[in-house]
Amino acid sequence: MSLLAVGTVAFDAIETPFGKTDKIVGGAATFICLSASQFTHKMGLVSVVGGDFPKETIELLKQKGVNMDGLQIKENEKTFFWSGKYHNDMNSRDTIDTQLNVLADFVPVVPEEMRNAEFLMLGNLMPKLQLDVIKQMTTRPKLIVLDTMNFWMDIAMDDLIENLKHIDVLTINDGEARQLSGEYSLVKAAQKILKMGPKYLIIKKGEHGALLFNKEQVFFAPALPLEDVFDPTGAGDTFAGGFIGYLASTKDISFENMKRAIIYGSAMASFCVEKFGTERLLNLTSTEVEERIQEFVDLVQFDISLVNE
Amino acid sequence: MSLLAVGTVAFDAIETPFGKTDKIVGGAATFICLSASQFTHKMGLVSVVGGDFPKETIELLKQKGVNMDGLQIKENEKTFFWSGKYHNDMNSRDTIDTQLNVLADFVPVVPEEMRNAEFLMLGNLMPKLQLDVIKQMTTRPKLIVLDTMNFWMDIAMDDLIENLKHIDVLTINDGEARQLSGEYSLVKAAQKILKMGPKYLIIKKGEHGALLFNKEQVFFAPALPLEDVFDPTGAGDTFAGGFIGYLASTKDISFENMKRAIIYGSAMASFCVEKFGTERLLNLTSTEVEERIQEFVDLVQFDISLVNE
Repeated sequence: MSLLAVGTVAFDAIETPFGKTDKIVGGAATFICLSASQFTHKMGLVSVVGGDFPKETIELLKQKGVNMDGLQIKENEKTFFWSGKYHNDMNSRDTIDTQLNVLADFVPVVPEEMRNAEFLMLGNLMPKLQLDVIKQMTTRPKLIVLDTMNFWMDIAMDDLIENLKHIDVLTINDGEARQLSGEYSLVKAAQKILKMGPKYLIIKKGEHGALLFNKEQVFFAPALPLEDVFDPTGAGDTFAGGFIGYLASTKDISFENMKRAIIYGSAMASFCVEKFGTERLLNLTSTEVEERIQEFVDLVQFDISLVNE
Repeated sequence: MSLLAVGTVAFDAIETPFGKTDKIVGGAATFICLSASQFTHKMGLVSVVGGDFPKETIELLKQKGVNMDGLQIKENEKTFFWSGKYHNDMNSRDTIDTQLNVLADFVPVVPEEMRNAEFLMLGNLMPKLQLDVIKQMTTRPKLIVLDTMNFWMDIAMDDLIENLKHIDVLTINDGEARQLSGEYSLVKAAQKILKMGPKYLIIKKGEHGALLFNKEQVFFAPALPLEDVFDPTGAGDTFAGGFIGYLASTKDISFENMKRAIIYGSAMASFCVEKFGTERLLNLTSTEVEERIQEFVDLVQFDISLVNE
């Protein structure tokens, strides 16, 4: 097993200025796996759903190369449900409804054959459960990436801070970096957070791109300027899935390769926001991905010959 | 004359979370010229000050290679004064006081020897005065860059729209691009604005970098992640000065060279915000500038070899 992804598999109901959906398939682990499957097929998922979750979606993920043995199906219960409404700027949203359902007493169990995964992606989930998964691994993964959100900083900060000691890469947004560090400047925030444990920090700034920090270096990847952001739901998870999927497929965790991985993650996220939910990711071709990568190259590459070089 | 810059020369009083200044030298044309002087010395300025403006600053600009023959000095009047206070996020500010003084009845007069300047930088100023300057040019400059702000969109939109028919490059911030176009998406905003006249549009996004559009291409330059932004006053003018100064020194107005010019402009702006007012620009060395450019290269350059290339 090359890559193991843990996180929610869910139903979402979304309202944006462009329209409204009924219950559609969502969840951090869903977006992560769909995105990573563009790069690697040696992948497993650990999550939980209820009996109401469509069997076709589970089949579809299997077809994408995702080993679904770690998906617990609680036939008599209901799948986690989230409903939200985006504001006109598409950067902020209100949660309308959250029904934990099967998530309320979820205990992740990593199947035997996934416990030696080289790459571990801990999608947004209760911090204690993320740590649970780390502890089930028989060999320490080559790279552990953890995604989280402000909600856990509000109610489970101590657990989250404990997790930071066990991981390699933390991905959070700019507001969360400020909350976690108590620093407004993102450079200062990064310095503080890197002292809490992770070797790398990715700060996601939505339409303003993403920053990758280690203690010595910083890299910036822009977001592609899009005519319209149709639905931002899952963009962060899709970014993370593209990032770790690319790393897992190349097995190279150097800073240089992480730069490429962030560009691939950004490209995947730029597709995600073009349609509601997972729709755009489902039939994405590798040619489309390569063409989008070329757009990123064209967007930021310049040629300056410095006298001092 | 290679480059002519028009705009305010002023006194500013600034308050930021880091401190407070008395009246210090500011003004769009001041920042533009100080920044452009890093790249070209064949430069003139057209503006107006009162008798209270320090003769040493005028001398200093001359020493930087700026021809000051176009600076009107109204001995019995007072220099334009602006006072403002920045909020904690440093992205927004309140104007505390504006005293137009000599600016109230300013009529720009371009000295004979500057009327054939190849590059014309119209700094932020009443749109009618910007057009006045264009009309005084005996030869159509190779490149006319115009900077403006939301204030003129509120009170003189028709004049501003007329100006757009006579210029090559418009530089505005993201909020102003939305106001001018009525479009929230910056890509759509750019498409609309480019139909109003300019061949190029630069959208300045402050700490989130800058976008350069023409009808077919888009380029993104990041802002350097800084530990602290000490005082943002003049950063946009410094950016514009670096942009046109670099273009004037290389005499190359291709899209590829404009990309480099934007990186140089961004580098200059990153120095500007490190101290109050013009302080950081006054003793900047070319080695410091080259080192900062290398930081931009390191920040955004990545190496992806695409199969399709």
